[in-house]
Amino acid sequence: MKNQMWSGRFSGVSDELLKEFNASLNIDKELFKQDIKGSIAHASMLKHCGILNQNELDAILKGLKQVKSEIQNGDFVFNIDDEDIHMAVEKRLSEIIGKEIGGKLHTARSRNDQVATDFKLFVKESLLELELLLKELILTLIAHAKEHKKSIMPSFTHLQHAQPISFSFWILSYAFMFKRDILRLRNSLELADECPLGSCACAGTSYKTDRALSANLLGFKKPMQNAMDGVSDRDFALDLLYDIAVIFTHTSRLCEELILFSSSEFNFIAISDSFSTGSSIMPQKKNPDVCELIRGKTGRVYGNLIALLTTMKALPLAYNKDMQEDKEGVFDSVKTAKKSLIILNAMLKEMQVKKENLLKACQNGHLLATDLADYLVREKNIPFREAHFIVGKVVAYAENKGIDISEIENLTEIDNVFDKEAMKILDFEHSLNSKQSEGSSSISSIEKQIENLEDFLKAK
Amino acid sequence: MKNQMWSGRFSGVSDELLKEFNASLNIDKELFKQDIKGSIAHASMLKHCGILNQNELDAILKGLKQVKSEIQNGDFVFNIDDEDIHMAVEKRLSEIIGKEIGGKLHTARSRNDQVATDFKLFVKESLLELELLLKELILTLIAHAKEHKKSIMPSFTHLQHAQPISFSFWILSYAFMFKRDILRLRNSLELADECPLGSCACAGTSYKTDRALSANLLGFKKPMQNAMDGVSDRDFALDLLYDIAVIFTHTSRLCEELILFSSSEFNFIAISDSFSTGSSIMPQKKNPDVCELIRGKTGRVYGNLIALLTTMKALPLAYNKDMQEDKEGVFDSVKTAKKSLIILNAMLKEMQVKKENLLKACQNGHLLATDLADYLVREKNIPFREAHFIVGKVVAYAENKGIDISEIENLTEIDNVFDKEAMKILDFEHSLNSKQSEGSSSISSIEKQIENLEDFLKAK
Amino acid sequence: MKNQMWSGRFSGVSDELLKEFNASLNIDKELFKQDIKGSIAHASMLKHCGILNQNELDAILKGLKQVKSEIQNGDFVFNIDDEDIHMAVEKRLSEIIGKEIGGKLHTARSRNDQVATDFKLFVKESLLELELLLKELILTLIAHAKEHKKSIMPSFTHLQHAQPISFSFWILSYAFMFKRDILRLRNSLELADECPLGSCACAGTSYKTDRALSANLLGFKKPMQNAMDGVSDRDFALDLLYDIAVIFTHTSRLCEELILFSSSEFNFIAISDSFSTGSSIMPQKKNPDVCELIRGKTGRVYGNLIALLTTMKALPLAYNKDMQEDKEGVFDSVKTAKKSLIILNAMLKEMQVKKENLLKACQNGHLLATDLADYLVREKNIPFREAHFIVGKVVAYAENKGIDISEIENLTEIDNVFDKEAMKILDFEHSLNSKQSEGSSSISSIEKQIENLEDFLKAK
Amino acid sequence: MKNQMWSGRFSGVSDELLKEFNASLNIDKELFKQDIKGSIAHASMLKHCGILNQNELDAILKGLKQVKSEIQNGDFVFNIDDEDIHMAVEKRLSEIIGKEIGGKLHTARSRNDQVATDFKLFVKESLLELELLLKELILTLIAHAKEHKKSIMPSFTHLQHAQPISFSFWILSYAFMFKRDILRLRNSLELADECPLGSCACAGTSYKTDRALSANLLGFKKPMQNAMDGVSDRDFALDLLYDIAVIFTHTSRLCEELILFSSSEFNFIAISDSFSTGSSIMPQKKNPDVCELIRGKTGRVYGNLIALLTTMKALPLAYNKDMQEDKEGVFDSVKTAKKSLIILNAMLKEMQVKKENLLKACQNGHLLATDLADYLVREKNIPFREAHFIVGKVVAYAENKGIDISEIENLTEIDNVFDKEAMKILDFEHSLNSKQSEGSSSISSIEKQIENLEDFLKAK
Repeated sequence: MKNQMWSGRFSGVSDELLKEFNASLNIDKELFKQDIKGSIAHASMLKHCGILNQNELDAILKGLKQVKSEIQNGDFVFNIDDEDIHMAVEKRLSEIIGKEIGGKLHTARSRNDQVATDFKLFVKESLLELELLLKELILTLIAHAKEHKKSIMPSFTHLQHAQPISFSFWILSYAFMFKRDILRLRNSLELADECPLGSCACAGTSYKTDRALSANLLGFKKPMQNAMDGVSDRDFALDLLYDIAVIFTHTSRLCEELILFSSSEFNFIAISDSFSTGSSIMPQKKNPDVCELIRGKTGRVYGNLIALLTTMKALPLAYNKDMQEDKEGVFDSVKTAKKSLIILNAMLKEMQVKKENLLKACQNGHLLATDLADYLVREKNIPFREAHFIVGKVVAYAENKGIDISEIENLTEIDNVFDKEAMKILDFEHSLNSKQSEGSSSISSIEKQIENLEDFLKAK
Repeated sequence: MKNQMWSGRFSGVSDELLKEFNASLNIDKELFKQDIKGSIAHASMLKHCGILNQNELDAILKGLKQVKSEIQNGDFVFNIDDEDIHMAVEKRLSEIIGKEIGGKLHTARSRNDQVATDFKLFVKESLLELELLLKELILTLIAHAKEHKKSIMPSFTHLQHAQPISFSFWILSYAFMFKRDILRLRNSLELADECPLGSCACAGTSYKTDRALSANLLGFKKPMQNAMDGVSDRDFALDLLYDIAVIFTHTSRLCEELILFSSSEFNFIAISDSFSTGSSIMPQKKNPDVCELIRGKTGRVYGNLIALLTTMKALPLAYNKDMQEDKEGVFDSVKTAKKSLIILNAMLKEMQVKKENLLKACQNGHLLATDLADYLVREKNIPFREAHFIVGKVVAYAENKGIDISEIENLTEIDNVFDKEAMKILDFEHSLNSKQSEGSSSISSIEKQIENLEDFLKAK
Repeated sequence: MKNQMWSGRFSGVSDELLKEFNASLNIDKELFKQDIKGSIAHASMLKHCGILNQNELDAILKGLKQVKSEIQNGDFVFNIDDEDIHMAVEKRLSEIIGKEIGGKLHTARSRNDQVATDFKLFVKESLLELELLLKELILTLIAHAKEHKKSIMPSFTHLQHAQPISFSFWILSYAFMFKRDILRLRNSLELADECPLGSCACAGTSYKTDRALSANLLGFKKPMQNAMDGVSDRDFALDLLYDIAVIFTHTSRLCEELILFSSSEFNFIAISDSFSTGSSIMPQKKNPDVCELIRGKTGRVYGNLIALLTTMKALPLAYNKDMQEDKEGVFDSVKTAKKSLIILNAMLKEMQVKKENLLKACQNGHLLATDLADYLVREKNIPFREAHFIVGKVVAYAENKGIDISEIENLTEIDNVFDKEAMKILDFEHSLNSKQSEGSSSISSIEKQIENLEDFLKAK
Repeated sequence: MKNQMWSGRFSGVSDELLKEFNASLNIDKELFKQDIKGSIAHASMLKHCGILNQNELDAILKGLKQVKSEIQNGDFVFNIDDEDIHMAVEKRLSEIIGKEIGGKLHTARSRNDQVATDFKLFVKESLLELELLLKELILTLIAHAKEHKKSIMPSFTHLQHAQPISFSFWILSYAFMFKRDILRLRNSLELADECPLGSCACAGTSYKTDRALSANLLGFKKPMQNAMDGVSDRDFALDLLYDIAVIFTHTSRLCEELILFSSSEFNFIAISDSFSTGSSIMPQKKNPDVCELIRGKTGRVYGNLIALLTTMKALPLAYNKDMQEDKEGVFDSVKTAKKSLIILNAMLKEMQVKKENLLKACQNGHLLATDLADYLVREKNIPFREAHFIVGKVVAYAENKGIDISEIENLTEIDNVFDKEAMKILDFEHSLNSKQSEGSSSISSIEKQIENLEDFLKAK
């Protein structure tokens, strides 16, 4: 086929390119620990079932130990010809202990169930690590919450001032999101607690194996119940990708607010120098880089989720090579999440809260108008709409004077329904603590919320 | 601002357009039952706490009952001016029982927590309904599995023939996917089991309410612990959207295989006329429309998930109008999933399996080659690679004769390592049942799998 | 198959449900005009080619006219049994003019090419309508730009104050985004300018048709070149969905800034009452609902894009029923985009810019520090890092006094490198207009930018 | 803050981790050529405008040349402290030619416009490279098309046999998709043809620069017109990501069909050994790995698109650190697309078409029934529904005999409307070539299609 204009320049496919395209080694070598762990469990089970003898098992375990140490020490030469980590480990094992015994390790398993097992082990470990990181993050939020029960700030709806709350109340709302994230991770862990090992290519094996044993050795509750499902399933990877996507929904909201709060317009907080970049010439300038990066990385983790959903869509059973695409996005989302949570936590620990500015912001927007109306209804038995009318007058009076209603000195001169006691309603701290409902912003409610979270952290 | 060329034609924004743009009534009127249910619980709680008296409660309950029946009977006039279902119900209630009492229903709640509660009730009901539909689907798969334990077919990896399995084994792999989907739905239900009602605008209320009571009246385990999280959270909607996305990952795989299996090339199954369309002129032609539609709808449910994730990304607390976009996609995914599962189930019930064609397909691809090699290793103690060499000869012999190895009449003449007993290895049914590992395709394993599933269905 | 617990409750699939599931009529009836337009062109072509005679053509045209008017007047009874708009129109046509002639309209076409043609016509019209709306939006932005060339405000990077710019400069940046959106729409239009009509089921027809003629009658440049591609292609729909996604990337950025700018912290603009909602009790409160809704709808249009990409992934040729899922998302994105652009435009027209607050914000952050350093380098030939050192002293001096450097009265007392002329550098308007580079924020540059945009709007 | 349980294990954030999190060097070092190219153009422009003198320019150019050669030779030490490629190059340049002159290169630009320029240069180059690869792919498809004009096969709709077509016709449908992809790439290139260089931080500069000159030196048509848009815009990256997503929509469809066609059920083609993997024991087994991988990678490129859309959603102007996330997905999609197209092309070149099996498949499904009916209508003036009735009889006759209607020997005995000439209708090749419409499957139409494509490839 002649192709004078372009041929040769691009289209010649080299062996090297083809190998690299087919191979997953560069990606899945990250699974070497899981692969060796899986092989140890498998070999032990084979011995238990009489398929390997003690000598063979000893040789295999010793050999695998050596392979692991070679990889950890950087002595292992990864060769793209081995295609994937499973082949690479197995080949080296056979070099060390001989092909005769080395080859027996592959009895009663195939690469299809082996890769599913290794990957699932990685996913389970990642779920646990993320839980720990979220717990640490919650601890940091609690620490701020304990300190700022009386740091009054405006709450926002539609980015407009709503009612006075405390900084504690605000920051605890995120703690409850992250608590929910932990519960979601645990649910995923529970769903991932069945082991595919021993499913073989897709139909099981004629060897009399003990899949419950190898599953237990690997920390799974039990083996998967259908071998074809065993090698075709990637739900566990989707679940993890989704859990991380939701975590970033939450961190992106938190980071958005931290960016707003550290703008010169809001000026509610100061992010420590270590977590922001400045200007040699403008010392007060602090770009909240870390917050922006975490917010921006939301795209990446959403993308990884949609990528695997797309890959799995309409894929016939059982194993198809398409599924080799499953790991890179998961590794990326896990790394992204772990790093982001560690750094977000460290940044929050050093974050400085500007209490005076929080309070000052409350004096903008007549935040206490609702309290005043509620007071009239609740204490003076004035019907709702009449109460609204009276408060309308109060607000108009303040607007007229160019002040916030919290700055009014004498309510009685506006309407004589107000007595002295009414004046205490115009106090932000009173407003905060007048909230009596469960989960509200009052100090006593904040303390219960903290208790709830601390109990949760201790529980498991 | 002059704009001779285009002005007037498009840009004039009418009041009507603006109202429609702002209003959610056309979408959220679907929540009328949940809204009234929520109001009943709220009013009952207010009465319990002494905020309403018995007469007021009675009036409210009677009024709400009437509103509900008006909507159900089609007598209710929805007016876009009411903006959303909450306002529409409340306004009508006040018309019926008077503004004085009607207005009191809104004590100690706001539209922010009200909409979160109604929506969460809908999501919880949907989770339960989907569970029931998946259970029915599993029952249908089990019925096929019971019938086709001996219906031998090739398994596929890479869409190439792999090993002989039974139709039961194949279809049960999907049952286990749907079982996992049920567990995932239950996990989401558990995570959604805290009630936002009483969070008010975002900071709670100064009324002494009993949120645990209203939560319990609505079937929630307990109230949400932080009011700001209460009105800002849409995790429960994301969870449902994700669960449905995974369900469609599974149904799209099943439908892809059903489409393949009903092509004239595979010819493994026949889909009933009710679920396919034909041609007036070509009576044998049956387009598997329903399978194609369900596969195609995977796009829609993935899209709805990414839509809400995008909307929630980086949204500051607490309520923002962006969140009005939360419901349409959820309603769409739920409807899509419910209809698809009902129809898929009905179609599968009438699906005809062509057993002879399944078996015939096995005689293509030397599916028993692996069995033969395993036999030599296991029974004759021949090393793996020598066994492979011998089987290679067997395959070459068959290829030479233009037959499948299962059609060979005498193995001994190819290699005298084979004795008479070896011939039984070349039998598909023997192959199937020789599998001894848990979760394999043997009849006894199939029976255990069915038992596992039936126990699961009975359990809850 | 017994199913005591759940059967009957959900799984019974009714004929009605199945019809509704298969039918697209409820969605695609929106295409009735395109369908009739397409039929007129097709019939005219058939007449031209001698396949229909004049009487037949006359009858068909008259009949189609009547069908159209019945639909427009609401006299047309849509019946789900007709499955789609093409069938519905054709059946009614045959009722009006008789089956003999009515049936001939379907000569040399099939539903596969008919639906592709109708849908492509809709897409092309939508591309043009969106262009007009974007042009109107640009006109509004230009009007603001003309008024606010001297309205000085801080620019932001990382949401931190950067350099002084004008409101014109800021708002024109969006005009250039929308200009690019128009160019992208035009590119899509060009790519969509080939007509699938006459591709028939997927292989063309044995009738001697003139596809160029029908293409031209419908406003296409030419027919598609391969009939199989003709019925399988949905690129044109993807292109439109993508174009809309990018438009919303831009509008979401604009709306985010408008929300920020109308917060009480920024207080840069006031959105007109018609486009915001308030509080009966807090008159100053204005929730920027419209901006929030448009920002939130970004999720929906991203979702629609990913939905169709997913549906089309790995779909074998030619037509598959999965493709029936192509229209709903497109209709939704188009409606969403049109309404959002109309309303955004109307809102921007009434938006009030608070010039004094813009200027006041500049006096926070030593925005002129960079100008001062540039001045020393450029005019005084002082090396860059020495200049930085000197400006550092100036900033420290100001910080010490609690003022912005723009408020310093005498620079010479800080460093005698400064002469009188240096004082003019500390003027915001001077800073603005000192920018000499193309595309900068100076008045002369703004005027060129406006000219560029106005030329563009006039050109086509 | 005490944290006995978990502290220390995970949360300690090291300087190293923080640097790595903030830095983009590991990713953007890929842009070193573009960065140096951009600096050369910028320096040349500065010299032209009198901002640099000849000596300074000479030193800078020489220094940049050395930096480039150091990087290409692997002598350059990348240090994470340099944060990004721009800083790394600039620092090394200053080491080579001294800080005094080296520092002047940064006059009248900032990192914001520099990164936008480098990235846009990369995107433009990628667009061109993808065009070349698609052209080569089309050439390969044309070569097959030339060879298989008479290789008759069934077309499919709903994966059911439809009408007879040629292999040429089928494969050319993909050529037209890829032609459209090229046009889409060219459109993106045109949209990306404005240069951001010289926009500086976001507001331009007080230096009198010539942005048109630097734009032209870099191969851009002109500079971007608004500096704030210049640094905030990433449309060009989105466009490329979308173009690649559509390319994969097409390649995933092609690969899906190739996988089907190489199954033993279809058995239409054979993929060369180099592009498939087999089994040591089953020589006929060929897993179409490459096709599966390309189909699977569709997920990845969809994910990268949604990732950047998400990141850009609702981002305020101008530059935000979130945008640092823009490059990794683009690099990944470009690499994925380039490798996939090269390998797909090479695989298609070696693909073997099994003509006999294609033809055999036609004899299943009465593919000629439509032709027969058309013949009766067209040649015998029989009304459509009567023609259908007659053909129905023919099909029933064949079904009765267990044959395809193409195997009927005498039509007259079924209905005497058929004469001898009718028999020729039952010939597949006749059917193919009887198609007269533009774009159909006839040989003459195929030849025109090939001509169309070849003209297109030659044109530019």
